[in-house]
Amino acid sequence: MPAARSPRVANPWSGRFSEAPDQAFLAFSSSLAEDARLVREDVLGSLAHAATLRDAGILTADEHRDITIGLRAVLADLEAGRAQLREELEDVHMNVETLLGKYTAAAGKLHTARSRNDQVALDLRLFARRHLLALAEAECALADALLAKAAQHADLAMPGYTHLQPAQPITLGHALHAHAERALRDAERALDAFARANVSPLGAAALAGTSYPIDPRATATRLAFDRAFENSLDAVSDRDFAAEALSVCAIAAVHLSGFGEELTLFSSPAYGFLRLPEPLTTGSSIMPQKRNPDAAELLRGRAGRSMGALIAVLGTLKGLPLAYNRDLQEAKAPLLNGLPYCVEGVRIARALASGIEPVPERMRAALLDLARKHPAFIDIDVAAFAPDRVPARKTTPGGAAPDRVREAVKAAQRRAKELASTVRAHAQRIEAAERALLQA
Amino acid sequence: MPAARSPRVANPWSGRFSEAPDQAFLAFSSSLAEDARLVREDVLGSLAHAATLRDAGILTADEHRDITIGLRAVLADLEAGRAQLREELEDVHMNVETLLGKYTAAAGKLHTARSRNDQVALDLRLFARRHLLALAEAECALADALLAKAAQHADLAMPGYTHLQPAQPITLGHALHAHAERALRDAERALDAFARANVSPLGAAALAGTSYPIDPRATATRLAFDRAFENSLDAVSDRDFAAEALSVCAIAAVHLSGFGEELTLFSSPAYGFLRLPEPLTTGSSIMPQKRNPDAAELLRGRAGRSMGALIAVLGTLKGLPLAYNRDLQEAKAPLLNGLPYCVEGVRIARALASGIEPVPERMRAALLDLARKHPAFIDIDVAAFAPDRVPARKTTPGGAAPDRVREAVKAAQRRAKELASTVRAHAQRIEAAERALLQA
Amino acid sequence: MPAARSPRVANPWSGRFSEAPDQAFLAFSSSLAEDARLVREDVLGSLAHAATLRDAGILTADEHRDITIGLRAVLADLEAGRAQLREELEDVHMNVETLLGKYTAAAGKLHTARSRNDQVALDLRLFARRHLLALAEAECALADALLAKAAQHADLAMPGYTHLQPAQPITLGHALHAHAERALRDAERALDAFARANVSPLGAAALAGTSYPIDPRATATRLAFDRAFENSLDAVSDRDFAAEALSVCAIAAVHLSGFGEELTLFSSPAYGFLRLPEPLTTGSSIMPQKRNPDAAELLRGRAGRSMGALIAVLGTLKGLPLAYNRDLQEAKAPLLNGLPYCVEGVRIARALASGIEPVPERMRAALLDLARKHPAFIDIDVAAFAPDRVPARKTTPGGAAPDRVREAVKAAQRRAKELASTVRAHAQRIEAAERALLQA
Amino acid sequence: MPAARSPRVANPWSGRFSEAPDQAFLAFSSSLAEDARLVREDVLGSLAHAATLRDAGILTADEHRDITIGLRAVLADLEAGRAQLREELEDVHMNVETLLGKYTAAAGKLHTARSRNDQVALDLRLFARRHLLALAEAECALADALLAKAAQHADLAMPGYTHLQPAQPITLGHALHAHAERALRDAERALDAFARANVSPLGAAALAGTSYPIDPRATATRLAFDRAFENSLDAVSDRDFAAEALSVCAIAAVHLSGFGEELTLFSSPAYGFLRLPEPLTTGSSIMPQKRNPDAAELLRGRAGRSMGALIAVLGTLKGLPLAYNRDLQEAKAPLLNGLPYCVEGVRIARALASGIEPVPERMRAALLDLARKHPAFIDIDVAAFAPDRVPARKTTPGGAAPDRVREAVKAAQRRAKELASTVRAHAQRIEAAERALLQA
Repeated sequence: MPAARSPRVANPWSGRFSEAPDQAFLAFSSSLAEDARLVREDVLGSLAHAATLRDAGILTADEHRDITIGLRAVLADLEAGRAQLREELEDVHMNVETLLGKYTAAAGKLHTARSRNDQVALDLRLFARRHLLALAEAECALADALLAKAAQHADLAMPGYTHLQPAQPITLGHALHAHAERALRDAERALDAFARANVSPLGAAALAGTSYPIDPRATATRLAFDRAFENSLDAVSDRDFAAEALSVCAIAAVHLSGFGEELTLFSSPAYGFLRLPEPLTTGSSIMPQKRNPDAAELLRGRAGRSMGALIAVLGTLKGLPLAYNRDLQEAKAPLLNGLPYCVEGVRIARALASGIEPVPERMRAALLDLARKHPAFIDIDVAAFAPDRVPARKTTPGGAAPDRVREAVKAAQRRAKELASTVRAHAQRIEAAERALLQA
Repeated sequence: MPAARSPRVANPWSGRFSEAPDQAFLAFSSSLAEDARLVREDVLGSLAHAATLRDAGILTADEHRDITIGLRAVLADLEAGRAQLREELEDVHMNVETLLGKYTAAAGKLHTARSRNDQVALDLRLFARRHLLALAEAECALADALLAKAAQHADLAMPGYTHLQPAQPITLGHALHAHAERALRDAERALDAFARANVSPLGAAALAGTSYPIDPRATATRLAFDRAFENSLDAVSDRDFAAEALSVCAIAAVHLSGFGEELTLFSSPAYGFLRLPEPLTTGSSIMPQKRNPDAAELLRGRAGRSMGALIAVLGTLKGLPLAYNRDLQEAKAPLLNGLPYCVEGVRIARALASGIEPVPERMRAALLDLARKHPAFIDIDVAAFAPDRVPARKTTPGGAAPDRVREAVKAAQRRAKELASTVRAHAQRIEAAERALLQA
Repeated sequence: MPAARSPRVANPWSGRFSEAPDQAFLAFSSSLAEDARLVREDVLGSLAHAATLRDAGILTADEHRDITIGLRAVLADLEAGRAQLREELEDVHMNVETLLGKYTAAAGKLHTARSRNDQVALDLRLFARRHLLALAEAECALADALLAKAAQHADLAMPGYTHLQPAQPITLGHALHAHAERALRDAERALDAFARANVSPLGAAALAGTSYPIDPRATATRLAFDRAFENSLDAVSDRDFAAEALSVCAIAAVHLSGFGEELTLFSSPAYGFLRLPEPLTTGSSIMPQKRNPDAAELLRGRAGRSMGALIAVLGTLKGLPLAYNRDLQEAKAPLLNGLPYCVEGVRIARALASGIEPVPERMRAALLDLARKHPAFIDIDVAAFAPDRVPARKTTPGGAAPDRVREAVKAAQRRAKELASTVRAHAQRIEAAERALLQA
Repeated sequence: MPAARSPRVANPWSGRFSEAPDQAFLAFSSSLAEDARLVREDVLGSLAHAATLRDAGILTADEHRDITIGLRAVLADLEAGRAQLREELEDVHMNVETLLGKYTAAAGKLHTARSRNDQVALDLRLFARRHLLALAEAECALADALLAKAAQHADLAMPGYTHLQPAQPITLGHALHAHAERALRDAERALDAFARANVSPLGAAALAGTSYPIDPRATATRLAFDRAFENSLDAVSDRDFAAEALSVCAIAAVHLSGFGEELTLFSSPAYGFLRLPEPLTTGSSIMPQKRNPDAAELLRGRAGRSMGALIAVLGTLKGLPLAYNRDLQEAKAPLLNGLPYCVEGVRIARALASGIEPVPERMRAALLDLARKHPAFIDIDVAAFAPDRVPARKTTPGGAAPDRVREAVKAAQRRAKELASTVRAHAQRIEAAERALLQA
């Protein structure tokens, strides 16, 4: 979806396309609203490309130095608001190049052995890999928060539900650990997607590679990619890394929607099992005592847009022939919006997980009620009036017994730690490479 | 998808949620990026509501006058950039109310007999109905443009394709008329959706109606709605008008994607049947003579995001109980972005339709070739070397014969005119009502 | 999705495409699994086409009589299981034609002035219009059932929820009426879609119409269509009637998912407001006293597949050029499965609506609790300990006051009656036409 | 979408739910149409579970032997058509158990320490892992076929396209290799999804584990799972393995849709670059010489339904609380249909890839034309009239130069071989385990 361009439809039925077609077309075809997020990526790519051009003898050492200094200045100017992206230049690449022209006459040579086709693919991959790591890290942090609470409440009995009917006693720790397992799988998926996204397309040029003697593998190394592309046609046209990233997000978002549903339910007066952290709820103007679980509801609702972003990319890609087609531009916004949107959701989920407080008396009351009314509870346990001791009998590994929960939580904590350390290693390698390009 | 909030994830893996949870939550839960498009709607609703409060004796005449003047001033301030929406006030409603407070002490009374729940539903319906009319109008204009070209080229023979294989000769007019029929159905669908969206929810308050003696039907009339809500719970919680509007858009977008595919194909050198209007194509930096059909490709690609916007709303709504749930906020952005996005696409399609120029010699060459190679062409017409006279034999009403095409085009032009006049009547009634509210 | 063809992938990794390509291709490209549902439609279309061929002098009176008798016999044979569709004949059209050949030597002439392209479009439109009427009828019946219960319980106070937090007292009648409004809108949407689907494509032939002097309008009348196609290219290639029908279904399914969620919640022990009709719940093998709300849960879950069917059609259509492309076959199954699937869901919802029984003491207990704990309830009503009298104060038309609910329910019952009578009129006209074709 | 149940809606508008609610509910809630595909999986799971029960002393050696023999007989009976699944028994689990009862009185004990909740999760995982391996194998085979052709035509120059405009010469080998790269990534994704799906849920019982002293890890080993579940609540309720499998399918299907589009385009007379294998095309009844690229078109169209299946599962899962909810049943059909549907598509793509034959003279003609008309071609190469020698200058690794293509193809063949051997190792381990369970 486009960013706010409402002026153009302010009087939508009176207009009759009053603008000149070419102006309307500029607005229609510009990707600047999204590209604003790619400034840093675009400059990084250009810095690496410039070094490769120098190694190939295409830029002199002086030209390379001027371009490097210039690019760093352009980034600083844009970040500080001293320069702005201009819509008539259509995309981030032309904007950066034009701004660079103010710093050095060599700016024009930077586009040698490169095309907007491999350049935009590069920027999107730099963006995707960074946010996939952020997602993996956020999922590990969510798992950590859930597991810490799970360890704390491994013994706290509560009803377990099937069909939203109380079925068998479990413990709060057991339930929280279930959500942690999902978070860990989501982190793994993000890392798998990272591995496939972390491939440099630079050097594919328009579609066929180039006749300049550049080495795409050197550029890839400078940007801390795992490798360079295997096929230039594929490199400029494929966006399955975007579809995969958004499918990881959609699954993660569906997990969060279930977590949000449970928090909404169990913090409602009818259950009253949990209190949500106050900063993540809102009051009602009419009813001051009421606390609404807004963060939990938003988590639940956000799965819709994550599914939408995935379909947007898949639908855009469907039926496209090789190689670059302008349709690909429409896959940008869902990726650039959808990934940070998901990371933000996971972080809010972590804040919720850290802040929930159980209300044991409500849990116990629900269990006792149940034990009295549901002979089933009696059948499965002689200790009918101590239903909070029932979970202890579910001794299957992975089952509800507190000792089993504690064991499983410890194992999950170890996996979370390993995953987080893998994420950190990738991030540090990338940060080091980017620092080397960005700093004098 | 959220609007550009990239700063918050600038160093996504280093952050570890360093912001205070409540600040992050504010960003997470704010809808201001989308709400910026609803300022005019929000002020209109408040003006109508104020008049209803005055009629009910809740506002004095003086208070009503001050609020009216104040609201108009707030709108003028925001449109002129003299005032800005502030994110800490979270949504457009609170912002407008706060700004109004600077103009009159009676601002606080405006929220009587109203809640943010019916207010946001109102704003969204005002937005949806306006853009559905704009969509219907744009589709009529697209049909007009296609039909004008179709009338002009009712006799111009070209190959008709099945399976992208040339099958039988048709005429260009026949093909363009087919697309016009689709545009007319899309306009009808937009009008049907308009009729269901054009219902006022104001007066439903939080969920149950109010005990103040206000008349929601009077408010509805002031805003040129067809009627007021029948059930207050439904009024605050249902968003099927949004889902329906976006399903109309998705179908329209799929039609445009087919049109875009044909323009891309038939303007390519392999076919060469059409020249696209130059302002809607782009050149290539490496290959100056090449003209790329960017507008047509973007039309083709945009169906993906329209499908995504629809799924975003349906997915958000899935499984929600009555009445207002905060999840509903997530249905806003897909609607507010998705509708103008679709209108813009239809307008570009109209510009393309108006500007295409056929290349008759390429069409005739394709037909002759064909007639020689494909005995099928000989079988169905003795005039084997005049394949451009073949369509004349397809005399079925709605068939390829030029006379039939001319008849059908005329009938379609009449329908387009009627539809456009219906749209205009709705638009004028609404504009008059809004002018009465907005002007002294 | 294909029907059960698992044998072909029974040993999926050992196979390595051991079948001859042409056999595998037959299975891949056959639509027979779906086409089995179109037998009656296909025969009806052929009967109407035969009459048109006779009027045009293409069939003699004797040939027409033989073909008519033969087609009726083929239908009877297939319905009685005396004949079977054969996969090597690929689709329903070839199967019916082949079977007809056993009855009359004139069978081969039936394909004159017709193609599989307009024939399959016809069958799908006959199917779609029939099920859209069924959907409209089922939604009216659902509304009726909800409204009958709403009238009965217009006074029965219960908590109204926002954010799943009790907010203000409403009545059960008020809540049920809200769902009835949604059902009525869904019925309207189905009728709008019916009107656009009820157009005959027969006579469009392969894509360009035909040179035989047939009158497509006469065929349309025989099949009780509102009119014939306006453009033959559009007639054979457009499937927006399918996308529109499935978007109506998706919105209806989302409504049912919310209804299912509420029934699941409010019949759970934590709320206990409702008892579900026992035949629509299931027991648990381990816990005999427990009643699971399976029908309500399935209603909630079914929205997913309805959204999927819609995306399947939109995604298939995206980017297709004129005219017939084989891709269109993939739009069949989602339509043929998705429409009856939705109708079935609405019918189950009606059975649930008819059978629910409120538990007033649980509702009253929830209200009293609330009145004590939530000062908000006291603030808005002096009768703090009679919260079930609170709704009476919400006198806004469409609000919670029992008198208002009764008025609104009556108005809705009138609309339901009118809609149902419109549906019936369409259905009777169609049934009469079909009877005339099918019976001697 | 449900399998063919049309009889129930044969007269959809006359019915008014004439069936008794409980019969209609049975049809509504039965999953037997899908479950028919799970017979083998269900029997395998029961065989492994029986062995675990014997080890735990819950079944005697005799009981275990009788149950084992009985289960094998049930499978044989069902496969040979000597027994049928009965709809009134609702699902495959009850059917197998009931049939087993005819062979041994011990049948009833088989359900000890197990529930339908972990049983259905097991069956779905067995199904998913098998088809994910099949998908990975089919993608490797597709890559092999593409690479073999690519090696053969590494030198054959053809125009490379951007925006469907000829841009620069490439070679056919280069283009085919691009598609092979996509197939290899799809295979990798399938293997990643396999690894996460290959976890046994058996022993989770209803939701909490069991108090019987069984060892889920032993059951897992017997079924060649990599490990058993970590958390019983997660094990019975999560279906992200289904969503992940279908997202892999959706991405693969989008790749195939692009391949299908190219084959359709390039085999059309306007291009004429390729001849498709005749068994995978169809003729036209009216135009015998015409060959329609049906298989390629169906490949292109199938992406729609793959996207739909993914959305069906994500939409069903959205917002579900722990643990088992009946909604989960609706995620079955999209998985059980969607996976084999995708595998079938990849196999057809392989047959297409193996069978295409280039038409070098058409490629060369297109290049020459181009070289004359497009000065761009002259600019980039002095050998203006030998445009088929231009690719040789694109010497970037991964670029269009024939030597580079040959190198890249060889590297890709090595990767395809490694992936295929990984798939085979998994498959052999699983087949061995299943054979041990199924055979005396």
